[in-house]
Amino acid sequence: MGSYPFLKGHGTENDFVLLPDHDGTVHGGLSPEQMAGRVRALCDRRAGIGGDGVLRVVREDDHWFMDYRNADGSVAEMCGNGIRLFARYLVDEGLVEPATPFLVGTRDGMKMLDVDGENVTVDLGTATVLGETKVGVGDRSWPALHVDMGNPHAVAFVDDESTLAGLDLTRAPEHDPATYPDGVNVELVVRRGDVHVGMRVHERGSGETRSCGTGAGAVMVATAVADGADPTVTGEQAMYRVDVPGGMLAVTWSPEGHVYLTGPAVFVARGTTSL
Amino acid sequence: MGSYPFLKGHGTENDFVLLPDHDGTVHGGLSPEQMAGRVRALCDRRAGIGGDGVLRVVREDDHWFMDYRNADGSVAEMCGNGIRLFARYLVDEGLVEPATPFLVGTRDGMKMLDVDGENVTVDLGTATVLGETKVGVGDRSWPALHVDMGNPHAVAFVDDESTLAGLDLTRAPEHDPATYPDGVNVELVVRRGDVHVGMRVHERGSGETRSCGTGAGAVMVATAVADGADPTVTGEQAMYRVDVPGGMLAVTWSPEGHVYLTGPAVFVARGTTSL
Repeated sequence: MGSYPFLKGHGTENDFVLLPDHDGTVHGGLSPEQMAGRVRALCDRRAGIGGDGVLRVVREDDHWFMDYRNADGSVAEMCGNGIRLFARYLVDEGLVEPATPFLVGTRDGMKMLDVDGENVTVDLGTATVLGETKVGVGDRSWPALHVDMGNPHAVAFVDDESTLAGLDLTRAPEHDPATYPDGVNVELVVRRGDVHVGMRVHERGSGETRSCGTGAGAVMVATAVADGADPTVTGEQAMYRVDVPGGMLAVTWSPEGHVYLTGPAVFVARGTTSL
Repeated sequence: MGSYPFLKGHGTENDFVLLPDHDGTVHGGLSPEQMAGRVRALCDRRAGIGGDGVLRVVREDDHWFMDYRNADGSVAEMCGNGIRLFARYLVDEGLVEPATPFLVGTRDGMKMLDVDGENVTVDLGTATVLGETKVGVGDRSWPALHVDMGNPHAVAFVDDESTLAGLDLTRAPEHDPATYPDGVNVELVVRRGDVHVGMRVHERGSGETRSCGTGAGAVMVATAVADGADPTVTGEQAMYRVDVPGGMLAVTWSPEGHVYLTGPAVFVARGTTSL
């Protein structure tokens, strides 16, 4: 049984196993089923290394491509925290110019990344506000804003910190199946200060997580809209601090409608595995 | 920030981070508080490497000592699956003679280990049967056997596989606080064949786990007693297969009263970390 290199790291406790495979010779020969099995083995938190997903690093034409897969082995288009860790790897290894923003390829197209000291910023693309909806947890329900970040979100403001802390998110919140036929990521939010909110998130398919990049983006957009600070209307860029259970993110929304996610992304271990 | 070597592996999905520190120079200089903090950081399943505990390998006089700590950083005396992985390391690294049983030091004294191909056996010491008790899960309750394996266990047989599979072990089972003033590890068991049982376990302080070495030992002892096969009475060694959620263990009980736990112990990754 061969062994191959890996790194483990996280962005605000959204954690990943990264697999260097620059020329595609390490994992490129596997069938889709074999690769899915390897990803499941790597992400298993007891029998494997453990992670929310796998970031495979492959060279493609004039850029680096993020071959991202979820912990269940399924292929996914994009991951906001994952691509920030991916960018950290490229800079740490000297594979890109650290001083300037660079492009990374994903199944959702090219993404702009910028590494500045501790922080890594990704351009998540444009957010689309699609109107009012409703979500429920237990016997409580709230009005929510339907925000599309490439994936669907419902953002609801709850009364206070103790309400937020007390929510049982072990089950998926109730939502409108007509609005969200394929399920939805639900964010529950409290205000913590001027341009500063705290959130918890239930991700469809994953349950409650420590962080969700597009979720933080959706929360910022919903809060800015509530504050009358939508940059596509005011022409003024807006920035909010969004606290997730796993740390702190800064989210910027530009007059052109782009949402930028900024925060730490760190590696904690590296070595070899035979999984 | 320095970095130091680690291995990650598991025994029936009871998983551990192993820290080589042969001469004590890697981690030996840390205060107890610093070491506890390092163990918590290593065992964190999102921000760290992830594990149920840490096995530090230190030389002591004429033997190897297992400095074992729980994921919360607290010092523990012994760990049946952990010491089997520890033994695998010693053999893989050529630090002991693989062909013969060898002793490993623990806070609970010297333990005899035997590595035979895929399987590693540990002598868990003597089991003591302390009489009948009772446990409850949800609105069900069962008579249980109180078995002491160095730590306290309550072993209950449930009706069938669907009952076992359906139990909600997200909360600690009810037990008699007079019998178990410091809490108890509760095992729920079904028969799967001749000298073959399946179990689930709720460990005090940890919740439901994929495997528990002393729990498997207690289950075997309770089953053998129910079968009239107590070796300390019959004079005949007894062996049972005990299926845990994370795999399969063989448990042997000798006429001298010693319980031996046998099963796989494998490493899945190794490298360096700066946690």
